[in-house]
Amino acid sequence: MSNRKLRMGMVGGGMGAFIGPVHHMAATLDHEAELIAGAFSSDPTKSAESGRALGLDSRRVYPDWRTMISAEKKLPDEARIDFVSVVVPNSSHYLIVRRFLESGFNVVCDKPLTTTLAEAKALRRIVRQTGKVLALTHNYTGYPMVKQARFMVKSGMLGKINKVFVEFPQGWMAGLIENPGNSIGMWRMNPKVAGGSCCMGDLGTHAYNLLSYVTGLEIDALCADLTAFVPGNRLEDDGNLLLRFNGGARGLLVASQISAGEENPLRICVYGTRMGLEWRQEDPNYLLLKDPCGVVTRYSKGNSNLCPEAKKAARLIWGHPDGFIEAFANIYREAFVAIRTERNGKPIPACDFPTVDDGVAGMAFIESVLTSAKSSRKWTRMKR
Amino acid sequence: MSNRKLRMGMVGGGMGAFIGPVHHMAATLDHEAELIAGAFSSDPTKSAESGRALGLDSRRVYPDWRTMISAEKKLPDEARIDFVSVVVPNSSHYLIVRRFLESGFNVVCDKPLTTTLAEAKALRRIVRQTGKVLALTHNYTGYPMVKQARFMVKSGMLGKINKVFVEFPQGWMAGLIENPGNSIGMWRMNPKVAGGSCCMGDLGTHAYNLLSYVTGLEIDALCADLTAFVPGNRLEDDGNLLLRFNGGARGLLVASQISAGEENPLRICVYGTRMGLEWRQEDPNYLLLKDPCGVVTRYSKGNSNLCPEAKKAARLIWGHPDGFIEAFANIYREAFVAIRTERNGKPIPACDFPTVDDGVAGMAFIESVLTSAKSSRKWTRMKR
Amino acid sequence: MSNRKLRMGMVGGGMGAFIGPVHHMAATLDHEAELIAGAFSSDPTKSAESGRALGLDSRRVYPDWRTMISAEKKLPDEARIDFVSVVVPNSSHYLIVRRFLESGFNVVCDKPLTTTLAEAKALRRIVRQTGKVLALTHNYTGYPMVKQARFMVKSGMLGKINKVFVEFPQGWMAGLIENPGNSIGMWRMNPKVAGGSCCMGDLGTHAYNLLSYVTGLEIDALCADLTAFVPGNRLEDDGNLLLRFNGGARGLLVASQISAGEENPLRICVYGTRMGLEWRQEDPNYLLLKDPCGVVTRYSKGNSNLCPEAKKAARLIWGHPDGFIEAFANIYREAFVAIRTERNGKPIPACDFPTVDDGVAGMAFIESVLTSAKSSRKWTRMKR
Amino acid sequence: MSNRKLRMGMVGGGMGAFIGPVHHMAATLDHEAELIAGAFSSDPTKSAESGRALGLDSRRVYPDWRTMISAEKKLPDEARIDFVSVVVPNSSHYLIVRRFLESGFNVVCDKPLTTTLAEAKALRRIVRQTGKVLALTHNYTGYPMVKQARFMVKSGMLGKINKVFVEFPQGWMAGLIENPGNSIGMWRMNPKVAGGSCCMGDLGTHAYNLLSYVTGLEIDALCADLTAFVPGNRLEDDGNLLLRFNGGARGLLVASQISAGEENPLRICVYGTRMGLEWRQEDPNYLLLKDPCGVVTRYSKGNSNLCPEAKKAARLIWGHPDGFIEAFANIYREAFVAIRTERNGKPIPACDFPTVDDGVAGMAFIESVLTSAKSSRKWTRMKR
Repeated sequence: MSNRKLRMGMVGGGMGAFIGPVHHMAATLDHEAELIAGAFSSDPTKSAESGRALGLDSRRVYPDWRTMISAEKKLPDEARIDFVSVVVPNSSHYLIVRRFLESGFNVVCDKPLTTTLAEAKALRRIVRQTGKVLALTHNYTGYPMVKQARFMVKSGMLGKINKVFVEFPQGWMAGLIENPGNSIGMWRMNPKVAGGSCCMGDLGTHAYNLLSYVTGLEIDALCADLTAFVPGNRLEDDGNLLLRFNGGARGLLVASQISAGEENPLRICVYGTRMGLEWRQEDPNYLLLKDPCGVVTRYSKGNSNLCPEAKKAARLIWGHPDGFIEAFANIYREAFVAIRTERNGKPIPACDFPTVDDGVAGMAFIESVLTSAKSSRKWTRMKR
Repeated sequence: MSNRKLRMGMVGGGMGAFIGPVHHMAATLDHEAELIAGAFSSDPTKSAESGRALGLDSRRVYPDWRTMISAEKKLPDEARIDFVSVVVPNSSHYLIVRRFLESGFNVVCDKPLTTTLAEAKALRRIVRQTGKVLALTHNYTGYPMVKQARFMVKSGMLGKINKVFVEFPQGWMAGLIENPGNSIGMWRMNPKVAGGSCCMGDLGTHAYNLLSYVTGLEIDALCADLTAFVPGNRLEDDGNLLLRFNGGARGLLVASQISAGEENPLRICVYGTRMGLEWRQEDPNYLLLKDPCGVVTRYSKGNSNLCPEAKKAARLIWGHPDGFIEAFANIYREAFVAIRTERNGKPIPACDFPTVDDGVAGMAFIESVLTSAKSSRKWTRMKR
Repeated sequence: MSNRKLRMGMVGGGMGAFIGPVHHMAATLDHEAELIAGAFSSDPTKSAESGRALGLDSRRVYPDWRTMISAEKKLPDEARIDFVSVVVPNSSHYLIVRRFLESGFNVVCDKPLTTTLAEAKALRRIVRQTGKVLALTHNYTGYPMVKQARFMVKSGMLGKINKVFVEFPQGWMAGLIENPGNSIGMWRMNPKVAGGSCCMGDLGTHAYNLLSYVTGLEIDALCADLTAFVPGNRLEDDGNLLLRFNGGARGLLVASQISAGEENPLRICVYGTRMGLEWRQEDPNYLLLKDPCGVVTRYSKGNSNLCPEAKKAARLIWGHPDGFIEAFANIYREAFVAIRTERNGKPIPACDFPTVDDGVAGMAFIESVLTSAKSSRKWTRMKR
Repeated sequence: MSNRKLRMGMVGGGMGAFIGPVHHMAATLDHEAELIAGAFSSDPTKSAESGRALGLDSRRVYPDWRTMISAEKKLPDEARIDFVSVVVPNSSHYLIVRRFLESGFNVVCDKPLTTTLAEAKALRRIVRQTGKVLALTHNYTGYPMVKQARFMVKSGMLGKINKVFVEFPQGWMAGLIENPGNSIGMWRMNPKVAGGSCCMGDLGTHAYNLLSYVTGLEIDALCADLTAFVPGNRLEDDGNLLLRFNGGARGLLVASQISAGEENPLRICVYGTRMGLEWRQEDPNYLLLKDPCGVVTRYSKGNSNLCPEAKKAARLIWGHPDGFIEAFANIYREAFVAIRTERNGKPIPACDFPTVDDGVAGMAFIESVLTSAKSSRKWTRMKR
């Protein structure tokens, strides 16, 4: 396989969806892939309309994902999709991802991977059995300066890490507290669709993934205080965690959807014995390094002195801001290395994108959080 | 009593001290007081030297605070000090403050008020018995924009408050983790001098006072994870708390001395049902108000549309930064209103400075935190 | 013509180029166009290699742009390119753009449009004669918050505009001052390739376009101080202008390549009788509005209360940063509306992208600047 | 003379004044001086009232400055004032300063020193003849991080300086453009009181002093565009300058009172061949150093690695913001070293405060600006 564009399929992401178009733009930004097939909605009419709007060949627009699998499987190798992006609500991930993997397709899946740890572990087994690629779009770790942060921690520049603070506050549900309207119909608040968690699944897993990616620390135990402020919400819309890590470090993790006025300021602060660092998603092209004299050094995306991973992840030179889509595209770009290798029948190398292991870790995290919250907010050992 | 300058005494704050000179500058900034007497050190020689450096009449420079009390008491009313500022380490506060109050002097005391809740309550009884003024220098609430924040919360602009985050990370002890040297001799780490807490007493009480001042919320229960990272430190140098407030709000409070590279970025974020606000001590002349549309409004010290308390607390017009000393001076300026009233033999009015009640609350906070930490970090009801 | 993808050609932008790939990503981000043909280099071998790397059909990869024109012209209407993007150095713009227009192709051209005002005016005549689309990629006006700034000025919110300051300092040439090496070979410093200006053509025209787009003001006269700091540079690498506008407003425009340590902080400040506003390219998703009380309001890309143009230009919701590529893509997206209309044989509507008129204005600006600079920096009337 | 407090007198600064109380706070912040005498207003009643409000001995409160001179001169050396602070409008500076100097008093004078260059030069002669101290309160150079900026430039870290940009935009007069009311009565707009310049005298001289202090550069020639936007204003309320320095550097200087919404953001950017730096008065405790790789290093007031002058000028440790008053107090503190020396009859050493030479330079600057502006904005050689 030369430089040909990978053939992309999509499940979900029909008209009006938020994250489907992001996946589409991200996957195609570098001209490495082309969307050619999809089952864009559980409503066949909407799926067809979405395919038309995307200008796809109608024969490759399917009424549902099962039909898509069976039809694509029948296509010759040089026509069938190389991978499918699964961008449906959480509760549908497991079965769809499983069936695509088992049918021989590589998969890119939105997060969280599943709605239970057991499902996530099952997918891990299937990934290992099938040898297919499963990439999880924890897109925030696609930012160049997050890669630089990881590099700096790994390099030992910060000394031994003793403390980590990561927060992900959003405010869009705050208004629902006084005026819930029919918000309770939203899938994120519906345990049947979202799984056992609302803001921890939506935001907390991103925060946890970022923390793990940057620091490499493993949670030993945690204490969780979850609250549903929106009347009628059966899942939490605010969660605050204390964390204890193996090796003695301490941490806090905050995820919230009722932090009125906040947009999307995912933020991580890491403190070692020698230095601290800070990164904010709303100002993503910068990384702050804080030295013991109080001098703060701001590195920028595109600086010539960054680590190779950060350089590679920067699409443009310094001062030319990369944004959310570019970071998202970095996940795809790395996954494409693995997918191309798999399509060439070679062993998949270690790549810099979130895998099924991150998906399992995320579900272990959510279940540990829920266990703590439900047992009167006691300290709980992290599940594995 | 007309506009005459108040006569100020000081206990502690001798040469080389950090906070003594701050008290001196803050108390005299508005030309309302003059330092005329003191026992500046437990070492009589150092006290005498300090007095000389300050240009004081040597007859008013005392070898120790007991001598100071007995000598000042003997002076005629028009000569004796109007108040004393107590700026010694924590464990000495109780006895000194008590004796000055009982001897008829008004007192300004550095925080935390005492080393135990029982002592703080005892001082509260004495304040009530004697009718003297006791002001506590939780200086951060002296900033104009903190007063504006309090006003905005009170006014209902933010809606019902559901979440509060307050952090006070410092980094100056981080270097001691690898190179403790003889740091263990520092009084802040010595339980006999600092009391039962290091960073919670030093920073946590400021954070708690700020939270209480701005939101008016009362903690119902808390869960505390305290750690001593500096080898040999018998008290904590890092602490992370989950908070539950009466009325259902949730919160986090962080205080740390090992957050490498941080200077003094005390920060508070308050989220209501309608809006959020944020204030940072390192950028103290601004207050951010965040609306549900994501529009952020930045108010500045000196704006004509601020509340009266914020206007009064601004010494200069907008764009002319007020700093730490000016905020500190605001505590004194308010206390002087009370002290002048007391000296005129009139009932002390409600003023805008931290009192013995804040001191008691602070000690209740510390003891609650220590109880939680020592009981395997269980949730603990807030003591009163 | 339905929703089919537009067929894109490119002249220039071969391997190793900076701006070619940006055009490619920007043009295809929204899946509205596909690159299918090109003459990517004046070196036929390099052009062929570049085409291969892009996965293009080799029959559509041409050894030079003249061959490209003649070959594409012969293709049936449903195969030939719908537009060509011209991304070569300045001095080649004129002839290439002219020939493509005259041969019936729509054109997207990088800025500045030409190297002389006369050439730019000639292109304007040709555009009018041919009825083809000519879009100029002054990409900075593609940012959503620049559109919001323009809207706010137009709406009268700021009152009458009295002062404008726009600066575009870069630092990448500063190091050449001490170590010019063989930098003098760079085309930007070569009058034969760059035209009569280095930093004014590269950065100044962007700044001028931004100023014009946001304020609608027209320069009456200007005074220019241009300097070449890099030894051997025959063109200026630093330029500072005083501006007087029709109607009485005053302004300053700064463009520099020797402002050491600056990345790409294009910034505009506009002051009216009632309010001021500020926008910075390195923080592009925010717009600051400053009111007479000193209250600063920060609007974000994606806010629900923005003007329709700003909303439309935001690819993602608030808190999800759009970057340089997305802004660039907005120029293409608007140009595509015009190009599709032209391809459908209908009259081209007014669209929100820079046209040949902006190109003419930019060249008038450069020539006015050069006239002032060369006449001992005298005040010079703006050419038209 | 030991550590005794210096005896301070004041001319001007009566009740309701802005800058008088700032001088008072600044002069006494470090307990080195005490205000004991004054002629606070040209209205004797108001002077007396102001003195009473300040708690001064009424015998030292004078109905006018001439009476003050003659009365203070008659006092014994150990009672008379050590220096006088002159804080009246510009046009009164010359005579008052002159008479105090000639009568043997040291003087601290607000800026600009006089209303003409000739007067300034006359004062310089008198200073040299009398051997008295004349300090000029260009207070912005009192900030610690401005001293650090000066140090860094001097040290050669930035390489040869090629470009300087300094801006001082304020917005408080913008509202007067549409509603001038009786603003024309304001002394700043009255040539008889303010001298020949409004915003250049008020703000431009600060900007020029800052530029000179930080860079050491001397202006060779300038081109000035001055405008009066407020109807009826006979002096300029907006001014923009191009600067050429001896040695080849270029610059811009902006001063404005009609930049709506701006508070007091005096800002300087200096670019050398190796690095750039930036400082903003509204965020005064930080200094940004920008390296050629695009890495920005933020130094803070109080950092241990600052130059001695910056360390000395920081009243508090890092993270504890110093403000406007503290910077102002640094001018006084340095002047006091000179004043104490003079009072001890010794030769005055070189100190770090603005002197009569800075006053002369400031007036030469204003006159050069006015010459350019009045000669159709031609380039004008800097007067000396």
